[in-house]
Amino acid sequence: MIISDLQKELIKHKWDAYIITRGNMFLSQEATLKEENKLYEICGFSGSAGTLIVFKDSAVLLVDGRYELQATKEVDTKEVKVVCTSDSIGSWLQKEDESGLNIAYDPWCHSISEVEFWNRAVKKHHFVEDNIGVLGTRISPQVADIFEHDIEFAGVSVEEKISYMTDFINKNKLEAYFISECEAVSWLLNLRSNCLPYTPVLRAFALVDKEGEVSLFTNDLNKIEAELARYKGKEIGLSPNATPKKIQNLMKNHKIWICNLANPILSWKAAKNEVELEGFRRAHIRDGVAVCKFLYWLENNWQGQNEFSIAEKLKEFRAQGENFKDLSFETIAAFGSNGAIVHYTPKQETALTLEANSVLLLDSGVQYLDGTTDITRTIAIGKVEDKIKDSFTQVLKAHIAAASSRFPSGTQGRAIDTLARAELWRFGKDFNHGTGHGVGCFGCVHESPVSLSRRSKSPLEKSQVTSIEPGYYVAGEYGIRIENLYYIAEDNNPDFAEPMLKFENLTLVPIDKRLINKYLLTKQEISWLNDYHKEVYQKLNQLLPSEMQNWLTVSCAPL
Amino acid sequence: MIISDLQKELIKHKWDAYIITRGNMFLSQEATLKEENKLYEICGFSGSAGTLIVFKDSAVLLVDGRYELQATKEVDTKEVKVVCTSDSIGSWLQKEDESGLNIAYDPWCHSISEVEFWNRAVKKHHFVEDNIGVLGTRISPQVADIFEHDIEFAGVSVEEKISYMTDFINKNKLEAYFISECEAVSWLLNLRSNCLPYTPVLRAFALVDKEGEVSLFTNDLNKIEAELARYKGKEIGLSPNATPKKIQNLMKNHKIWICNLANPILSWKAAKNEVELEGFRRAHIRDGVAVCKFLYWLENNWQGQNEFSIAEKLKEFRAQGENFKDLSFETIAAFGSNGAIVHYTPKQETALTLEANSVLLLDSGVQYLDGTTDITRTIAIGKVEDKIKDSFTQVLKAHIAAASSRFPSGTQGRAIDTLARAELWRFGKDFNHGTGHGVGCFGCVHESPVSLSRRSKSPLEKSQVTSIEPGYYVAGEYGIRIENLYYIAEDNNPDFAEPMLKFENLTLVPIDKRLINKYLLTKQEISWLNDYHKEVYQKLNQLLPSEMQNWLTVSCAPL
Repeated sequence: MIISDLQKELIKHKWDAYIITRGNMFLSQEATLKEENKLYEICGFSGSAGTLIVFKDSAVLLVDGRYELQATKEVDTKEVKVVCTSDSIGSWLQKEDESGLNIAYDPWCHSISEVEFWNRAVKKHHFVEDNIGVLGTRISPQVADIFEHDIEFAGVSVEEKISYMTDFINKNKLEAYFISECEAVSWLLNLRSNCLPYTPVLRAFALVDKEGEVSLFTNDLNKIEAELARYKGKEIGLSPNATPKKIQNLMKNHKIWICNLANPILSWKAAKNEVELEGFRRAHIRDGVAVCKFLYWLENNWQGQNEFSIAEKLKEFRAQGENFKDLSFETIAAFGSNGAIVHYTPKQETALTLEANSVLLLDSGVQYLDGTTDITRTIAIGKVEDKIKDSFTQVLKAHIAAASSRFPSGTQGRAIDTLARAELWRFGKDFNHGTGHGVGCFGCVHESPVSLSRRSKSPLEKSQVTSIEPGYYVAGEYGIRIENLYYIAEDNNPDFAEPMLKFENLTLVPIDKRLINKYLLTKQEISWLNDYHKEVYQKLNQLLPSEMQNWLTVSCAPL
Repeated sequence: MIISDLQKELIKHKWDAYIITRGNMFLSQEATLKEENKLYEICGFSGSAGTLIVFKDSAVLLVDGRYELQATKEVDTKEVKVVCTSDSIGSWLQKEDESGLNIAYDPWCHSISEVEFWNRAVKKHHFVEDNIGVLGTRISPQVADIFEHDIEFAGVSVEEKISYMTDFINKNKLEAYFISECEAVSWLLNLRSNCLPYTPVLRAFALVDKEGEVSLFTNDLNKIEAELARYKGKEIGLSPNATPKKIQNLMKNHKIWICNLANPILSWKAAKNEVELEGFRRAHIRDGVAVCKFLYWLENNWQGQNEFSIAEKLKEFRAQGENFKDLSFETIAAFGSNGAIVHYTPKQETALTLEANSVLLLDSGVQYLDGTTDITRTIAIGKVEDKIKDSFTQVLKAHIAAASSRFPSGTQGRAIDTLARAELWRFGKDFNHGTGHGVGCFGCVHESPVSLSRRSKSPLEKSQVTSIEPGYYVAGEYGIRIENLYYIAEDNNPDFAEPMLKFENLTLVPIDKRLINKYLLTKQEISWLNDYHKEVYQKLNQLLPSEMQNWLTVSCAPL
């Protein structure tokens, strides 16, 4: 279906507008392009976040800063107006002049909270459920290849995890809890699946009752309804931010009491257990070896390569590693001006060829069975201008400011975002994405609720894993990002009057010193970098073929 | 009235509890102790913020971190339990186990928003209005000595300010706007009064109609009601956070439509005009001269002096300055362990005598007709231990981190709070108050909405005036705080890709170098300090008597 088809549907159903998100019944960012990316089908936009609103004679695509350039390139801007905003569709509609429209939406694809917000705060419009699904099915495909995430990697048994859940249900005097987040279902049951690229989660809802009985719902909607029917007059907990409006409708139809209660699994899952942390450390050594092999190869072979071919090569090196399952997201290999398109991914036909005298931004990662990786390196190709080196060094300062910080348990993620960003502010620079995101253990590479972003109130706690990845982008010229993963640990400094947390490094790949203007770094920043490189050297040197050890020695030598 | 009297009232009126704040009908922090500080009368607590809840057989006093030590000293802890929390009374009641109580409150002393929150979010209790006022009058005293704030200081005429207001009223299609904040009324009408110590605001409400007619309400409640009666069926705007519940009741009785709309004067007033900024700069030169004279005197005369006598002496020096009207708050002169009581103020009878080998924390300020000052210096008395010097230097680092930052227009105050606090976090330290507060122009020394505190979402904009005052406190040992005032200006660096704001210094008094451990400072921090001292020297040297010029030269010499 394209925009003009949908506009015919508007007329047919007497709607004035239709809201389309990338959402599917699991409301998650991860979706297969073909099956569920409605935005791509309808308007050509392939980014992982965006909302399209189609009116009878126009259309608006709302995207955040990461996707502004990409959206403008991908859609027909005569037909679709691209708006870069951090507002939700509801807040955007609130501020727009228009009123009195009948706006349709699919109740499978929007959360209870979102629809409540529209009905409460955007009263000037009338929001109508499309229960037919005019855009086609939003039911997830048949679950393929479910497999167990071995206890050797998961660390805690399903029985134990379910007992946390029944404690929670009983403490809240509920009959059951409806788990809407697929990644929470996957964690609870130590199950994974192959149905999505990059993200090995099981795509399913689950209902856990107070005795610990679990019902799993994949794509059989009748089963959800039949199961729910048993709870008439009883109280079920659910997270309104993560549950489709349709589920609320079903529960109301069956006269079930709904208790709005955030899913406790999200924070349990965010704090990794010792087995998971050990897996993360092992996976990062393995990934470091693969990326170093690639960087060594690249240094000697970049001529004639393009963005696509090097991404393939990088995957080759990684695929040789133990426990390799898949990449954790589509590799961003962005050369020169493509680096400024924050979520650019190269296509074989249009990939830029690497040429001397610019920088390559390479953001990539792997799903190993024992841990997930996500690393960005910005790499000098040829001789790079001083102004790019200055920007690189300033981004490095921002990275170090966050990575070397100490903070009390419970500090909100946005505080760390501020520490990184403020280093760029000093140079009159900024970047239009968050400083970091939580990472799942062989799960979502962007895992909620941990987030080091401007708005994140999510409390930082011991054993959480997060990226730190400040950047700087000049449209049409270049892009820079430096990303490592860290886990949060206690700082046991005996001199401390107050207990503090710190970031412990996971990622083990040299940061390109050829791009550093040493005179912009403080003594403390230089020691941070030297300590980091010492750790990389010590952990990787013995694992690299002898011809690369010299390269590693040079790459990790003190600044 | 004391607690047992109030408990008798509870029984008489069939209430289970009574909420008492320091609030008066103006809901402001500033109040005369005798006339309005109900908490002091009832339980002995004299701090400027706190809520007491009296139950039939117990009482709880909620205070924030600033007042924990002081409250524990002042109240009879057998009768009143002191709870240190950043929760409001509503949030605290929410979390407590008890339920089903009839809780009384005075509708003059709580805002519309606060009462709405109780009724919406603390449904387990029943909140009842005390319309008798069992605690006695909460009507403000007769307004004394109203006087004009000359246009030479205020910079903008009353006519012009009222025209901003009528534009606002008409834009929002209102009939009138009810101004509940005294400091906003004072600003709008360029009026001040002597009815409070330290804070020269006029204590009044005002109603501005769409034609620009202003009705002023001081203590004549009948006049409010009579005036409101004229608006039957019409719509009046007001700020529910700042307006007493009682005013809402009166409006409802007279069938007035209420439009909840934040008072726009607060942000207009926060951004100082050029005349006000020029006044602030002049006032700070004058105040710098007085404080330097005091510091010179103190260095030679501290033996035998006590906290109270030095506060008097400091006032003497300041009172000689042009445009001196009053202090801007009660001087905090806290020696040694008293420094750890964040809002300690010395009393003549109990003041500590200064003795060698500790630090004096001196937080004080002046209301000059042309600007308000607020400065904290921590001063070495005798030879000070290294651990105190280290703490002082760490607090200085925190101060510099905030003061030297750059940030985009609209950055929330809490971001700057994080930048300061994170420097202390690195050393396992923290402090339990905000990093800074807005300052009025010959108005409230704590002026909303500007705030550099952990929770402040208030956007920072050009021409706002704020303090930066991180601290560190060790109970029973010592307290450190370093406070300067700054105004926010544009950074016109031509190399900047994004426009940034910066803090421009107002306060001109040396920071005690005897307390600095130079080895904890970075090169950048040392240059900040040297530049600051150079500015102090250049602006004050010619204004000091010749015998003090040598002292200033030494105090301002580069580190």
